[in-house]
Amino acid sequence: MRREDSLLEKIVKSSSSPWMDGSGTMSDVVISSRVRLARNLRDVEFPHRMDEKSSNAVMEKVFRAVSDVNARKAVSELTCIDLRDVSPLDRQVLVEKHLMSPQHAQSLPGRGLVTRPDERVSIMVNEEDHIRLQCLYSGLELDEAYITANGMDDLLDERLDFAYDDRSGFLTACPTNVGTGLRASVMVHLPALAIGDEVSRVLSAVNKVGLVIRGLYGEGTEGQGNVYQVSNQITLGQTEKEILENLSLIAKQVVAEEKRYRETLMKSRRSALEDRIFRAWGILSNARTMSSGEAVKLWSDVRLGVELELIDGLSVTHVNEILVISQPNFVMRAHGRTMSPEERDIARAELVRRHLATMKP
Amino acid sequence: MRREDSLLEKIVKSSSSPWMDGSGTMSDVVISSRVRLARNLRDVEFPHRMDEKSSNAVMEKVFRAVSDVNARKAVSELTCIDLRDVSPLDRQVLVEKHLMSPQHAQSLPGRGLVTRPDERVSIMVNEEDHIRLQCLYSGLELDEAYITANGMDDLLDERLDFAYDDRSGFLTACPTNVGTGLRASVMVHLPALAIGDEVSRVLSAVNKVGLVIRGLYGEGTEGQGNVYQVSNQITLGQTEKEILENLSLIAKQVVAEEKRYRETLMKSRRSALEDRIFRAWGILSNARTMSSGEAVKLWSDVRLGVELELIDGLSVTHVNEILVISQPNFVMRAHGRTMSPEERDIARAELVRRHLATMKP
Repeated sequence: MRREDSLLEKIVKSSSSPWMDGSGTMSDVVISSRVRLARNLRDVEFPHRMDEKSSNAVMEKVFRAVSDVNARKAVSELTCIDLRDVSPLDRQVLVEKHLMSPQHAQSLPGRGLVTRPDERVSIMVNEEDHIRLQCLYSGLELDEAYITANGMDDLLDERLDFAYDDRSGFLTACPTNVGTGLRASVMVHLPALAIGDEVSRVLSAVNKVGLVIRGLYGEGTEGQGNVYQVSNQITLGQTEKEILENLSLIAKQVVAEEKRYRETLMKSRRSALEDRIFRAWGILSNARTMSSGEAVKLWSDVRLGVELELIDGLSVTHVNEILVISQPNFVMRAHGRTMSPEERDIARAELVRRHLATMKP
Repeated sequence: MRREDSLLEKIVKSSSSPWMDGSGTMSDVVISSRVRLARNLRDVEFPHRMDEKSSNAVMEKVFRAVSDVNARKAVSELTCIDLRDVSPLDRQVLVEKHLMSPQHAQSLPGRGLVTRPDERVSIMVNEEDHIRLQCLYSGLELDEAYITANGMDDLLDERLDFAYDDRSGFLTACPTNVGTGLRASVMVHLPALAIGDEVSRVLSAVNKVGLVIRGLYGEGTEGQGNVYQVSNQITLGQTEKEILENLSLIAKQVVAEEKRYRETLMKSRRSALEDRIFRAWGILSNARTMSSGEAVKLWSDVRLGVELELIDGLSVTHVNEILVISQPNFVMRAHGRTMSPEERDIARAELVRRHLATMKP
């Protein structure tokens, strides 16, 4: 079993992640695309029923398989992390960087994380399922993400015995994941629809075709920064191809609606829009104390300004990093200690300010 | 009669006035001090009863006296302006620059204005009285302003026959001005008392000792930018010295209260205060549309930041000019045309932004 603290250290300290670098198709609206596969080892109880011994055994098996994949040097080198070796604060930062779920950050034994320097691939070991393989790409790149996920899945499948039933497909801890075990999602930024008060109309249409909407950080964070994650609800009875095509189609429709509203705003309310965007920039780059909610809200306006080319000289990558920088645990990690909410708000404002000081619109 | 369009042009175009240059005693709280003398010519009806012919005659007499004063070269050269030769827009700018009253800007015949390049002295001819001589100084400089006003009064008195009664003193159109004809006022900036919600307590104490409170632009503008003008109510039954000493004493007490609150804020709420100040700076220097009310409100916070040395590298003079720049008629004059309120808000934001772009905190 390999551990590389240096990669963990690098990840929790860096505000940038490739999934938010502003590249990829339709990246002016689609922040990122994610494909996640749920897999379980045959004849081993699901994680919520496992004792410490068997969860350790599963983690060891998975890590050994990953080591073997690394040895073949066919893909970028993966790093295995036993989460017991990661501080609670760092685990929370891994959640904020979308490398693992909030549930996975809880300090239960036998939980592991596998990732690689570009953070595009991550594997949660012993979350709800034994293996949750995630591929995260910037822009609308579901196919790209699926190809990577599928390749990783094949490499692991050659080394591990996955629970699979010819009738049901892949078996999973929760019945909603049975079948392909695939969940795909796109994270979209809908600031113009939000200004036009049209988000709920658009999203309820998305809901009607069986897709689910979540916020930037899962359920309960809907609407934060006008960012929404659209994902498939059902994994059974549809092929991988159907799931991805369906989601991609809907995402493109949402993108078209958002872009139509951006054009409308530019035509009919340009000065109000510019004012809103530059005020957001002025506050973000000057405030001395700021909540994460406010930072994400202001980020939304500034990002819209960059995408509409109303603000010059800002890079989308750099602007997107505000999303990570403004999260509570990232702020505390950057300062190397836990903080009261008041201290954190001051530290956050300072981090954001320093981050933006390198850019001048 | 002399007319110098060049001085008028210079005044209405410039955002700076010596009375707001941040110099003088206690200028961290006291913006300016004003002494005004009301005088009337003997045996001529008061302006509100005059016909065009007699008002023209009064203006001519006053302008001739001023010319004669100029010829002696004892004081800075004064410029006489017949307000009929001044556009309505420029007249409003002269009001916004505190060189004359709103009433005086109305286009009645025979109204004149005398001033000089440093704008410290101005004489309204045929406002409520034939002569209203004003001296305006930065900081708490009532004595300085009175000395200048008195000197000018003497020079005019030698050349004009003022209506004076041994029992009542100088006769004026409104009985509240009879006596010394002197009104003195100080313009104070009370942002810390405003944050502490203590302004009304302090000002009601001021009211109780017979002083009047007005706003930045007279009655009805109280509280704009947390600026208040404190002035004497009565001119009869008190000597000039008593009036000035009384006002000066009260002003010093108000200054002490404001400074005590500034210290309290710095001790107990420094980060909230810094945040407020820098947000104001961020919005002022980035917004794309802004009402005059908002500009003055933000100015108040930025000025407090400069006085408390929380913002470095800003000059008080430069910051104070925002007060002039943000006024509606100054904005339109700078653009050379009348504008709708919406256009004006955009033009104002641009003027303020350009003004601040030369400063970097």
